[in-house]
Amino acid sequence: MLINGEWRAASADVATFSPFNPATGEQLETSYPVATAAEINDLLDAGTAAALQLRSASTAQLTDFLSGYADAIDAAAEELAALAATETGLPIAPRLTGVEIPRTTGQLRQAAAAAQSDEWTNPVIDAANNLRSRLESLGKPVLTIGPNNFPFAFNGVAGGDFAAAVATGHPIIAKAHPAHPGTTQRLAELAHDAAKAAGLPNAMVQMFYHMDAAVGASLCGDTRLGAIGFTGSEATGRKIKASADAAGIPTYLEMSSINPVAFLPGAMEEKAIALADEYAGSCLLGVGQFCTNPGLILTIAGKATEVFISQATQVFAGAASAVMLTPALPVHLESGVKYLTDQSAELLARGVASTEAGARGRPALLRVPGAAFVANPAEFQSEMFGPASLIVVAADEAELLAVGAQLHASLTCSFYTAADGADDALYDQLEPIVAQKSGRILNDKMPTGVAVSPAMVHGGPFPAGGHPGFTAVGVPASLRRFGALKCYDNVRPDRLPASLRD
Amino acid sequence: MLINGEWRAASADVATFSPFNPATGEQLETSYPVATAAEINDLLDAGTAAALQLRSASTAQLTDFLSGYADAIDAAAEELAALAATETGLPIAPRLTGVEIPRTTGQLRQAAAAAQSDEWTNPVIDAANNLRSRLESLGKPVLTIGPNNFPFAFNGVAGGDFAAAVATGHPIIAKAHPAHPGTTQRLAELAHDAAKAAGLPNAMVQMFYHMDAAVGASLCGDTRLGAIGFTGSEATGRKIKASADAAGIPTYLEMSSINPVAFLPGAMEEKAIALADEYAGSCLLGVGQFCTNPGLILTIAGKATEVFISQATQVFAGAASAVMLTPALPVHLESGVKYLTDQSAELLARGVASTEAGARGRPALLRVPGAAFVANPAEFQSEMFGPASLIVVAADEAELLAVGAQLHASLTCSFYTAADGADDALYDQLEPIVAQKSGRILNDKMPTGVAVSPAMVHGGPFPAGGHPGFTAVGVPASLRRFGALKCYDNVRPDRLPASLRD
Repeated sequence: MLINGEWRAASADVATFSPFNPATGEQLETSYPVATAAEINDLLDAGTAAALQLRSASTAQLTDFLSGYADAIDAAAEELAALAATETGLPIAPRLTGVEIPRTTGQLRQAAAAAQSDEWTNPVIDAANNLRSRLESLGKPVLTIGPNNFPFAFNGVAGGDFAAAVATGHPIIAKAHPAHPGTTQRLAELAHDAAKAAGLPNAMVQMFYHMDAAVGASLCGDTRLGAIGFTGSEATGRKIKASADAAGIPTYLEMSSINPVAFLPGAMEEKAIALADEYAGSCLLGVGQFCTNPGLILTIAGKATEVFISQATQVFAGAASAVMLTPALPVHLESGVKYLTDQSAELLARGVASTEAGARGRPALLRVPGAAFVANPAEFQSEMFGPASLIVVAADEAELLAVGAQLHASLTCSFYTAADGADDALYDQLEPIVAQKSGRILNDKMPTGVAVSPAMVHGGPFPAGGHPGFTAVGVPASLRRFGALKCYDNVRPDRLPASLRD
Repeated sequence: MLINGEWRAASADVATFSPFNPATGEQLETSYPVATAAEINDLLDAGTAAALQLRSASTAQLTDFLSGYADAIDAAAEELAALAATETGLPIAPRLTGVEIPRTTGQLRQAAAAAQSDEWTNPVIDAANNLRSRLESLGKPVLTIGPNNFPFAFNGVAGGDFAAAVATGHPIIAKAHPAHPGTTQRLAELAHDAAKAAGLPNAMVQMFYHMDAAVGASLCGDTRLGAIGFTGSEATGRKIKASADAAGIPTYLEMSSINPVAFLPGAMEEKAIALADEYAGSCLLGVGQFCTNPGLILTIAGKATEVFISQATQVFAGAASAVMLTPALPVHLESGVKYLTDQSAELLARGVASTEAGARGRPALLRVPGAAFVANPAEFQSEMFGPASLIVVAADEAELLAVGAQLHASLTCSFYTAADGADDALYDQLEPIVAQKSGRILNDKMPTGVAVSPAMVHGGPFPAGGHPGFTAVGVPASLRRFGALKCYDNVRPDRLPASLRD
């Protein structure tokens, strides 16, 4: 663990864990410590002291840190990707070196630029009343907790939450995901070196790997924390939120989501086969291990819909089983598929079974009538994380609207409609019902890709996100999550932050 | 109660309550119903339907409603002020007709202008990626709950939360404060008429008076609500937050606050008597019934500090007992004073006792050494709502900093320092410790006044506020509390909100 600038080895009597190589199914040799309550306390104390020291740091130091760290990741990209591939089963190229590492360093550099600019602080000056306000640091460390599926771009010590919390002037207490501790350790080394090179406090970046539930609840409810950024499962996110809420600590959660995609009848008439290929490709991409994976398809019964379903069934049936991030995931996927078939969903296709070693997830496509969905809406919205989804076939427009009314919160919702406007009347009825439950509304496009853009929203109402007003991706909006709104009332000019002076 | 556009009388078997006239101590004749679970359910259903209807309303309608309502309040100002004076004991002039009603209509008109502008929505267009984002309505009704101390400017059916939630396109479910139900009823009539005149839904404004704790917990955790705006006591605010948090409903709370004011030694040397007069005037203003009342004074022992304390003691001892908002408040004030003296605080002065009728609060000034405060910081930060405060006298600079480190969250923190810079070194040490716990930092100024300015922050970290990133006062910032951040990804141009088109 990296505590106050020192790498602290596990003491002899401390619990440890070792990750798996999901491609082989074998446990790796390196073991990592589980943090004790005393170590968590040390992290919080050091982070608190660092937050006070950071008040006299310059934004140039934050920029230097983030840029220098991005450069260091780029320089070590091959080594990092090899490490992450061993721990996660994700392909080195193009996924890790071609896509995810460039995305990660790009985010760090965008955050570096945002730290230098004052845009995220939204300065407001009312000179007549001598009142000046802006967003600024919370003055406390931020806890960042990353998921299993992005060892770089959402890592607690390198991802979007990390970049946003650093750019806004916070020391980081990062929790590694236990599925890729070695990758996270190496990243933390690079981050710590870059922070020191920028003259930032020893405890600017701290990192631990794992903790038990009681220690976790205590940490997430500790008022020494300024905020928590979390990406991961809804079950874990709810626990984090409950502990933090009781202490009044803001949480920014990005949790599971089934991302409904509606294919309206006119669109089906126009190009059912092309749409089925586009949908199946999106669902199977990356073994379906994205928060924005299309898990629920909304259709209306008809000939074109049957063509769409038949084509999707063929693609799913021909898709290979592929290595997932951890040994647990294929097991969860199987129980998710079984749960839905137990609820009366029809199994349309499974992918090609594999006898190869490793944690392989087998694609699955399921179908259910709209009436059955409406009768048990919670059951049919249970997430199957992986290359699997459920097609809901409504009998008619009214049933489709009834399905839409039962949808839970999601990160995204997508609508495919006819080019000639034939679906517009139905769109106008469905969109208001569905769109208010999502952070991103798409037309004629699958939701899988999440561009790093100032206009991106990766979030949504609870329990897809933690707060409807914020996004985890996109600069400078993602930085504002970590801002405390402050008014300087009649404060003497030499004591004002530079951006609030006349 | 005003439910879906109809005034519903209490049914015979329903509990009722009657408010008091605090100036006479007598209970008023009119009785008001306590809402049942069934009535709350009706409010939520009607609010949900109204939220969907509002999607096709124009911002011009919202503007018309808010402006028309402001005009109606101005036209009825004499009648409203007389009603409120009877229920709250607040003076008709200048307080109600000269200050609070103009502030209220000013806020409504500012919100009307903000509804017309798109500034609060923060539109962001990334044309290259065809991504567009903005804040928009949560798509659900907002529950607004006002306090006892501002029957207009913070009323659930007329105040800042109401104005902000309407301007952002939400139907309102307002809870009257049971101390001024008649005032709130009359306001709700005017609001409903103005909403109808603007062509808005029947359930645009709904209002109820009271509910028991179980119904309240159920309401605040009902996912048909988009958000909750609350101003009032910390005890009630914590209950609201707990229910809402469990359901993932954002809450914007403005709770009790003791508003520390530090008078540093050089400032005391320069003008101890003038500072004592300024402080005592601020503390006694409005019988001390402001969230921003200065309840805790930080000083360092010395001759000038004794001059300050002696002068403040004289002013408090000469101050009259005056009518408070409810019969309960003088009782709470007495127990608050007794609690602090029981904790070893020295009672420096009580105001002039009164034999007149009514709920009269007697000013109180107390003193405690810094060491005693540091030994029991929570006890000495218990709020005495009313014309009372506690002066902490630290032995030296180190003890003052130790006191500062123990402060809880507050809406404001103020610092008086010498004009010649003699206190600047101490300020530089104290300010970083104290300021991160407050939403507004003042220099050489008492915190009581809260200007309605775009740069105002009326909020702070929990439990002074509910979320450190927001303010309850100030347009357009206060509107953003009720915004859902949405991205339109590849959405067809004719379906985009106007402000997001190319």
